[in-house]
Amino acid sequence: MLLARGVVATPAFMPVGTLGTVKSLTPEELQELGADIILGNIYHLYLRPGVEVIAALGGLHRFMNWDGPILTDSGGYQIFSLAPFRTITEEGVTFRSHLDGSQHFLDPEKVVALQEAIGVDIAICLDECPGYPAPEAEVHQAAARTLRWAQRSLKARRREETALFAVVQGGMISTLRKEQAQAFRELDFDGYALGGLSVGEEKDLTLAMVEATTPELPQDKPRYLMGVGTPEDLVEGVARGVDLFDCVLPTRNGRNGMAFTSFGRVVIKNAAHTQDPRPLDEACGCYTCRHYSRAYLRHLFISRELLAYRLFTLHNLYYYLDLMTRMRQAAAQGRFADFRREFYQNRLEGGNSSG
Amino acid sequence: MLLARGVVATPAFMPVGTLGTVKSLTPEELQELGADIILGNIYHLYLRPGVEVIAALGGLHRFMNWDGPILTDSGGYQIFSLAPFRTITEEGVTFRSHLDGSQHFLDPEKVVALQEAIGVDIAICLDECPGYPAPEAEVHQAAARTLRWAQRSLKARRREETALFAVVQGGMISTLRKEQAQAFRELDFDGYALGGLSVGEEKDLTLAMVEATTPELPQDKPRYLMGVGTPEDLVEGVARGVDLFDCVLPTRNGRNGMAFTSFGRVVIKNAAHTQDPRPLDEACGCYTCRHYSRAYLRHLFISRELLAYRLFTLHNLYYYLDLMTRMRQAAAQGRFADFRREFYQNRLEGGNSSG
Repeated sequence: MLLARGVVATPAFMPVGTLGTVKSLTPEELQELGADIILGNIYHLYLRPGVEVIAALGGLHRFMNWDGPILTDSGGYQIFSLAPFRTITEEGVTFRSHLDGSQHFLDPEKVVALQEAIGVDIAICLDECPGYPAPEAEVHQAAARTLRWAQRSLKARRREETALFAVVQGGMISTLRKEQAQAFRELDFDGYALGGLSVGEEKDLTLAMVEATTPELPQDKPRYLMGVGTPEDLVEGVARGVDLFDCVLPTRNGRNGMAFTSFGRVVIKNAAHTQDPRPLDEACGCYTCRHYSRAYLRHLFISRELLAYRLFTLHNLYYYLDLMTRMRQAAAQGRFADFRREFYQNRLEGGNSSG
Repeated sequence: MLLARGVVATPAFMPVGTLGTVKSLTPEELQELGADIILGNIYHLYLRPGVEVIAALGGLHRFMNWDGPILTDSGGYQIFSLAPFRTITEEGVTFRSHLDGSQHFLDPEKVVALQEAIGVDIAICLDECPGYPAPEAEVHQAAARTLRWAQRSLKARRREETALFAVVQGGMISTLRKEQAQAFRELDFDGYALGGLSVGEEKDLTLAMVEATTPELPQDKPRYLMGVGTPEDLVEGVARGVDLFDCVLPTRNGRNGMAFTSFGRVVIKNAAHTQDPRPLDEACGCYTCRHYSRAYLRHLFISRELLAYRLFTLHNLYYYLDLMTRMRQAAAQGRFADFRREFYQNRLEGGNSSG
């Protein structure tokens, strides 16, 4: 994927840095982990510290000291999941801040302008996310409005260096997903996001919706599966043509003492790790696994020491980013099917040592 | 100061790593900051994760991935300030854990053995810390018992690589401090700590007690002022012959969004910093000041982002360690008096920009 700030090797995983920081890490650490691109959220940044503050400080990259590409989510999902008292019209959405209750109005044009104002590399159109489950009529209506809003967003573009991605909605209705994708492909977006998935539905349903959508989208433009997922989800997403992923799991679960490894998950608070001299994953080359025992990590976590959050975040992001690298290599060598089989095999074999 | 693991340039400040971690930082960062030696606390480590866990993992250095010198405090102060239901006899002290209420008994011999068991470079004798203020008779009694316990500690030594420091008590009675120091100098310790200071008394009184003590202690052995203090305290301590300091201020206040600078303190939550593009201290060469604006730091702090705690800790420790370096250089060049005058001059001049 070619952006104004350079090339992002795909498929790629984008670490989540909602508020202009990937929780607990420095930009240098993200770079060392091999993150080509990170994610912010314009809904959150708009409310705090405010787009005018970030713009006055020279844009989001300079503000947070990260000079690689940044994608910001439009915050459609956050407005619908976090903000109280939201009312939606064809014009846009009125909502109260989840921080201080102040009232705000955002429309598709302003959401593009806000993202351009802080100079991100990829902006996402404002979309309407129906709840799950939702009445079929509501899902149809939200998908249609998301399409109209995307058309307005396209017209609102002003800044060439900011790529614009649309969000394809359609709930769990595969025919609607397919129709929507066909309609969107006629519009000149730089990429396409699959929204409204991984919102509580069964895993098979998520994958069925991905399968209904990706083949209908342009093959030469990035397809981004929003907010997904587990390591297994990444493998299955790539198998279905997804190019970009983001998810809070490696960072959030890391802060909760859960490590993703080649053989499954390690829950560090378990007493079994009290005197365990082994690293989280003997096959892992991350900073945490090269230097620290499970015993020490458990001690830090139990003691609520800040270093614990860092070390687990480093490990989990290393695991996620390394997984993407290995998938890219396997795909380039035409052995993705083998890779996928081995990936599951490791998990079956290591099941007993996951603690 | 020569230790089994190398030389520590004095006067030195020891970052506090109570539980086997200097909160939020990696050992590599501490090394880069120029920390020659760090501090742990045997009372805390004994309770969690337990000395047997650390010993089983190869000692505290290996456990926490720090191969420089470590000094552990005996925990005398913590037992008297944190632990409920403590009873003290000539034998030792019985107390309940502040974590789970479990009952424990520690005596001077065991406290030496615990520190040797985890392989620290400097162990501190168990002492009795009277409260402040305390009746004069109680202060005398505690000082005398601390001396007897120090003699027992000396006999309990088994491990050559662990240096042993005594703690000189004596409350706020300068004649008693002097007498105690004279009694202690007859005993063959590797260094001497000044305990029971900075416990709520006026600053002048602290310094008077230091002045009463340091001249009576051997000039060729390190003198360590425990738990002190502000940058001003470090300068005044060095002026009075102190070689070692430790204090939670740079780390704890850092986590509370307070930065120490050459011109005074910066409280980042103040609204004045909202759009301030300047670093915390334009004269500072630390990672935080080289890369981040006050506006960004304020945003992180207000948003309770983990990176804030790291960036303030890095800055404050850099400031403290750099201050010690500058004092060592000034002393070596015979211009400590000039240094001290300039130090206060900078603070007067910069008073208005401290925010």
